[in-house]
Amino acid sequence: MWQLHQFPLCPFSRKLRLLMGEKNVAYELVREYPWEGRDELWHLNPAGRTPVLHDPARQVALSDSQAICEFLEETVDRTPLISGSALQRAEIRRLVSLFDENFYHDVTEPALHEKMKKRIVLRQSPDGQVLRQLGRMLHGHLDYIDWLVDTRQWLAGPTLSLADLTCAAHLSVVDYLGAIDWKGHEQAQGWYMVMKSRPSFRPLLSEKMDGLPPPREYASLDL
Amino acid sequence: MWQLHQFPLCPFSRKLRLLMGEKNVAYELVREYPWEGRDELWHLNPAGRTPVLHDPARQVALSDSQAICEFLEETVDRTPLISGSALQRAEIRRLVSLFDENFYHDVTEPALHEKMKKRIVLRQSPDGQVLRQLGRMLHGHLDYIDWLVDTRQWLAGPTLSLADLTCAAHLSVVDYLGAIDWKGHEQAQGWYMVMKSRPSFRPLLSEKMDGLPPPREYASLDL
Repeated sequence: MWQLHQFPLCPFSRKLRLLMGEKNVAYELVREYPWEGRDELWHLNPAGRTPVLHDPARQVALSDSQAICEFLEETVDRTPLISGSALQRAEIRRLVSLFDENFYHDVTEPALHEKMKKRIVLRQSPDGQVLRQLGRMLHGHLDYIDWLVDTRQWLAGPTLSLADLTCAAHLSVVDYLGAIDWKGHEQAQGWYMVMKSRPSFRPLLSEKMDGLPPPREYASLDL
Repeated sequence: MWQLHQFPLCPFSRKLRLLMGEKNVAYELVREYPWEGRDELWHLNPAGRTPVLHDPARQVALSDSQAICEFLEETVDRTPLISGSALQRAEIRRLVSLFDENFYHDVTEPALHEKMKKRIVLRQSPDGQVLRQLGRMLHGHLDYIDWLVDTRQWLAGPTLSLADLTCAAHLSVVDYLGAIDWKGHEQAQGWYMVMKSRPSFRPLLSEKMDGLPPPREYASLDL
């Protein structure tokens, strides 16, 4: 069986878990904190990052979340998530990258640094200025998500795609860290509640990061 | 015809130009400096980045270099560059991401900031400490490229792939900026000379960034 090396608040591992959930691919979790720099992680992935999808029996270790998603899309027929015409697939991949790169850089990464890493690794207080800047950037990104929800059935077009899973993965991490203000973003919030209520989301909502409990509303399915 | 919005030292645009060169896809260049924040660039790509591949006649604008490469791979039969079994394709994509994310973060981005942006935009001197740290990181990456060249025919396996083009694109930017020390990395250097001598590379080697000439060896095909 696949072993997924990850930690609960890794957005890229969450994206992959949502995809594996939608495709009904079985896996077991291996807890892996990249900042501890375990030799085994560096051995499995020279980039030293989560997620890594490892099958010890077949001696296969896949890394980079997008490379793994493309691999599963190519090898598992069930529930295509990068589908449609070449143009539609380009739009799905453009949005995946927008969330994995821009949203991550502007919002998820500083939220993880200030509210997770400083608390459980560095034992420091979060920097209020960074959190305010993150809030402003999040507001801009939510505006764009509102617009996508307003003009399309799902974020990248007429069907649920990896773009929805990627965006929801990042939002769920920021939500766990109590850093989302949905005010004025009813469209994005409504779409996120739909994503949250999917069966593929359930394992994420029940998992906790040691020493860092989520806010009460995090796992709630009510608006 | 496709219009490619880019600037000469954008590594992601170089990766795409190499792919379009290998596949013999025609395009014309539109000079675009993302730091100037032109409205048209933000309109074509909400991430505000190069490259953007635009076809005004068909009203198609593609962005994110990897999404565009996947699109061209799916729509242009000639010279497949993400080919082989699903595992081989995963290996190609893992390496593309290693160069576009880790190598970029550790080497290309600080080199561009210190040696291009400070010179032509900010009018500042480069920070020697950052350049030394970049040199150490580059050394580590070149070690890994040496190992790939030692153990495989091309970086990702038995055939030329997008992994080779991506790595060469980043190295060519750092080389233009005079920031590569090849000492002790004969395998990587030999492989790079092979890449440099491909016809797809020629347009990159002759293009100059205004106010920032490359070192004399940059365009040379001799070791």
